[in-house]
Amino acid sequence: MRADLLLIGFGNVGRRFARLLEERRDRLSHDYDLDTRIVGITTRSHGAVFSPSGVNVEESLVRIERESSLGTPQPAARMIDALAESDAPMRVVIETTTLNIEDGRPAIAHVESALEANCDVVTANKGPAAFAYARLDALAHARGREFLFEGAVMDGIPVFNLVRETMPAVTVRGFRGVVNSTTNHIISALEDGETFAPALARMQAEGIAEADPSLDVDGWDAAAKASALANVLMNANITPHDVLRTGLDTSTEFAVQDAMSRGNRLRLVASATRDGDGNLVVTVKPEELPGTDVLAGLRGMANALILQTDLLGEVAIHQLSGSLTQTAYALLSDLISIRRRRA
Amino acid sequence: MRADLLLIGFGNVGRRFARLLEERRDRLSHDYDLDTRIVGITTRSHGAVFSPSGVNVEESLVRIERESSLGTPQPAARMIDALAESDAPMRVVIETTTLNIEDGRPAIAHVESALEANCDVVTANKGPAAFAYARLDALAHARGREFLFEGAVMDGIPVFNLVRETMPAVTVRGFRGVVNSTTNHIISALEDGETFAPALARMQAEGIAEADPSLDVDGWDAAAKASALANVLMNANITPHDVLRTGLDTSTEFAVQDAMSRGNRLRLVASATRDGDGNLVVTVKPEELPGTDVLAGLRGMANALILQTDLLGEVAIHQLSGSLTQTAYALLSDLISIRRRRA
Repeated sequence: MRADLLLIGFGNVGRRFARLLEERRDRLSHDYDLDTRIVGITTRSHGAVFSPSGVNVEESLVRIERESSLGTPQPAARMIDALAESDAPMRVVIETTTLNIEDGRPAIAHVESALEANCDVVTANKGPAAFAYARLDALAHARGREFLFEGAVMDGIPVFNLVRETMPAVTVRGFRGVVNSTTNHIISALEDGETFAPALARMQAEGIAEADPSLDVDGWDAAAKASALANVLMNANITPHDVLRTGLDTSTEFAVQDAMSRGNRLRLVASATRDGDGNLVVTVKPEELPGTDVLAGLRGMANALILQTDLLGEVAIHQLSGSLTQTAYALLSDLISIRRRRA
Repeated sequence: MRADLLLIGFGNVGRRFARLLEERRDRLSHDYDLDTRIVGITTRSHGAVFSPSGVNVEESLVRIERESSLGTPQPAARMIDALAESDAPMRVVIETTTLNIEDGRPAIAHVESALEANCDVVTANKGPAAFAYARLDALAHARGREFLFEGAVMDGIPVFNLVRETMPAVTVRGFRGVVNSTTNHIISALEDGETFAPALARMQAEGIAEADPSLDVDGWDAAAKASALANVLMNANITPHDVLRTGLDTSTEFAVQDAMSRGNRLRLVASATRDGDGNLVVTVKPEELPGTDVLAGLRGMANALILQTDLLGEVAIHQLSGSLTQTAYALLSDLISIRRRRA
């Protein structure tokens, strides 16, 4: 089955995804009867390219890496309309723009436009599920299209598919997790005796933390992930601004050492529980955990999510290493999910 | 969609499954359009009952718990033939006999008979996947039926579905796990200062270990799980007798304390790796692990499996608590998988 793809965003993740499609072309065709063709690419600062017969991906990769333009910039909505005219049985928008923690735009608009044009949409951006899951999911259902985002929380490690595909008839009652790698890296450095500001500066120099690290350090990235998890797994209908959020700061270095002196570990934990009245409480905050806690064992890039369920008790899934390939794979796994549902 | 079920085995797991079907009846109907009816039950020592219009499950539960017979014993094969005559669109054999570590029989024969009679089959028994996966899987394909066994390794915690449903196009290169609860319980007791024989006797008194504990203690249960994992996830085509197997014994108490004195932890680890020539080596043996290893953190009933993959690096899934409901749920989740594929 042919799938025509429009890539909105062509940064590290989008480019790794384009390469991964080529690397796995034979397997996708053989195992899943899936034949992908990238018909359009649009970027924030390097223009756009569209060709109904398929763009030259290799050339586009070279251009981007030389910082030259792909072609005349075009509004995403117009490119989605062009994709919608394809006669391929799968028309999929691959959305990899970066998170806007104010309101999730423009990613939400991209998802909306794709669904309204009767295209499926896959995104690695947390914004749509964190800010507007219920509405976008309803729109996808109404249009008979898919809105998938496995990469939004733990890169390619299955979280949403884990619950949807492998735990049918199970109710998720709550969750706790370490879902932000930058802050976990910082905490590991503090455990090793570094102090906060130099540890953060080193992470920035190594490309682990952003130039503006506030999204990670202030807990916003974890809050967006917690919001997406609560919306999808627990029908929460919240935004990241509803999450009770405490990030890391220079006081964290003392808290980390204090915890260790008691045989415990400090971790930035995202969690959701229902209070006595059944109201959902979603938080992101540094928590002191006993050394035996699964989350206490996570260092550096390791992430984990513990799901509290009715029938299976507590189930944890771990990401033991992180890489660009994993995030790119998340998009590929969503694409295969669409193919399977089209069977 | 109606599903007529034949239960082969009606021990703790089979009975909990029968109750779970009733507890979730509305949800199965509403969420999955699945309407189950138990038309037959056969047991090893309490006879059998079959009724094409559905057996009285409540009465059967009462009879079994009073140690009285369900009815005249009947060969499983004859009951499978009776199930095959049902006009229900789903005809499923639910196999919950206990593992025979010699050769996996009679569970393998039950699976074979079910598939040959064009019925689907779900089993919580490790034997069929551990001894005969390739043959039974080929038979299921040839008949267009399902052969599923999610409960065989980590009760209801998804392992096989995790790979099949949520990691498409990923290659599993190896695995390491703690997959036997009894031996992990014993090791936890040894870490707490108990000695081997009294710890084992206590586990037996508490019903955690069997009266004949050799299946667990000698590593056979873990070897059967490792064989099933290697066969299904890595096309190994082995049996538990091909697993290099070392169990626990009285020397383990010293090894546990020795490991702790070095800041490490002893765990009974099941693993599969390829050697330099590409040959698969599957082992079960006590291994001394650094305290930072995910498996080192597992105590008591906790199990975990770490998958080594090409695209996702290492992914771990944890079972943090164990219960009869989880094992019964594994059968239910397989039943829902069949329903979904029949869509």
